[in-house]
Amino acid sequence: MASRASTESRYVLRWQRGARARREKDELAAEEPLEIQVDTRPVAVTMRTPGHDDELAAGFLLTEGIVRSKTDIAKITPYVRNQTGNVLDVFLAPHVKVDFAQLTRHVFASSSCGLCGKATIEAVQRHFSRLKTRLSVSGKTLLQLPGVLREHQQAFDRTGGLHAAGIFNSRGKLIVLREDVGRHNAVDKVLGYGLLRGLLPFERHILMVSGRASFEILQKALAARVPIVAAVSAPSSLAVEFATSSGQTLVGFVREDRLNIYSRPDRVNLR
Amino acid sequence: MASRASTESRYVLRWQRGARARREKDELAAEEPLEIQVDTRPVAVTMRTPGHDDELAAGFLLTEGIVRSKTDIAKITPYVRNQTGNVLDVFLAPHVKVDFAQLTRHVFASSSCGLCGKATIEAVQRHFSRLKTRLSVSGKTLLQLPGVLREHQQAFDRTGGLHAAGIFNSRGKLIVLREDVGRHNAVDKVLGYGLLRGLLPFERHILMVSGRASFEILQKALAARVPIVAAVSAPSSLAVEFATSSGQTLVGFVREDRLNIYSRPDRVNLR
Repeated sequence: MASRASTESRYVLRWQRGARARREKDELAAEEPLEIQVDTRPVAVTMRTPGHDDELAAGFLLTEGIVRSKTDIAKITPYVRNQTGNVLDVFLAPHVKVDFAQLTRHVFASSSCGLCGKATIEAVQRHFSRLKTRLSVSGKTLLQLPGVLREHQQAFDRTGGLHAAGIFNSRGKLIVLREDVGRHNAVDKVLGYGLLRGLLPFERHILMVSGRASFEILQKALAARVPIVAAVSAPSSLAVEFATSSGQTLVGFVREDRLNIYSRPDRVNLR
Repeated sequence: MASRASTESRYVLRWQRGARARREKDELAAEEPLEIQVDTRPVAVTMRTPGHDDELAAGFLLTEGIVRSKTDIAKITPYVRNQTGNVLDVFLAPHVKVDFAQLTRHVFASSSCGLCGKATIEAVQRHFSRLKTRLSVSGKTLLQLPGVLREHQQAFDRTGGLHAAGIFNSRGKLIVLREDVGRHNAVDKVLGYGLLRGLLPFERHILMVSGRASFEILQKALAARVPIVAAVSAPSSLAVEFATSSGQTLVGFVREDRLNIYSRPDRVNLR
């Protein structure tokens, strides 16, 4: 199977405190959905980095207990009617029995499900309209957020094993912080806090996450109308693509004295 | 809703090169499945850190586009017939319409699905039998793996945004390495490589992952009969519990000169 690029080039606005922001090329980890079909029946969609998709499908079926050896698989091939390379057909050997009802109930079916990134993005944006919020947050305020997040993390220092998500107002005041083994759960918790307290929409707010920013984080933020998403680490390519078309400001690699802006820099004051 | 512990205490064997291994108490991030029911119908199971489950359920329904404000939710309450606290009922207000077929198709349904951690572990272990492999790997070999992994990561240095998984033999030789935005995908890819090349079972091998070790990673490793799983960062509580009962050796916080062993230390030679 042809290997596809696992990274994508994008322009980013790099800013360091005291210096001028510069527009530069940056490499992002590629993120696209893959639909796995077994004997032409869709069984799972996973957000993945393209490349070695045949191995991904084989490993998935192995770890779901469907196949045990190479001879259980007759053929792995891209779905002929899809041009994106994001749908894969696995044909099993005649002796392999599959309980499809059981399999599809147990598999990872991402909330960012769809046949290709484009389709998904369009579908999600039909559901949650584009953000037009005007807001100005200072770059210096954004630089302080990781420290505040870390300071308030209760379990991290003890376990070293949790993701954190925090909602801040535009002056950098922490509204709520939650931790979870799952990044998407930490985000659901802070947004759910807002919903249950009647604080939504979070349209003058910032969502800060401790790790990377995936497509899913941006999609969840949009549902709560959060205009600015900041991450301590890198965003994926699809996260940037999503933020760009949803009108969200996406900031990554927020460190002590520097940050990168991937979309809608107009909401960040770098003076 | 009562807040539950987000960490759990476990004993761990800490080893530093040149020193004696010591048995000490360690705090782990708690990881348990949560089943979310809407109007008594199960719609999603997610592996999460217990605590603020009502917020998690509310945020999940918000980001799936089911509810938009607090008034859309009539009540959130633990499922009365479940004693583990891992099943939550959300009752919607009468005016809220839900397309259940659409919702359950789109939600995260984890492969580590089940009503409670115990039930899941038992179910998985019925499927994939306990490991009894006898194997001895030196601690010094394990200490070298993160460096080898990092050295061979192609995309990480450029993007800073990818997880890596590698299969090593018992002398520390790298067999295959894959990177992905999803940790579980990177693991599926290396195991799928083994399956497609006819290299399984990996019963004299080590699976090394770049980040944390979750329950799911251990479960996937067991499917390919990998007796030793090592992680650069922390394991979750359920990962340790799973490894202990499946007979897998679980090693965490593998750094330049130290590591922690959470289960089956007999396979690691610390002399």
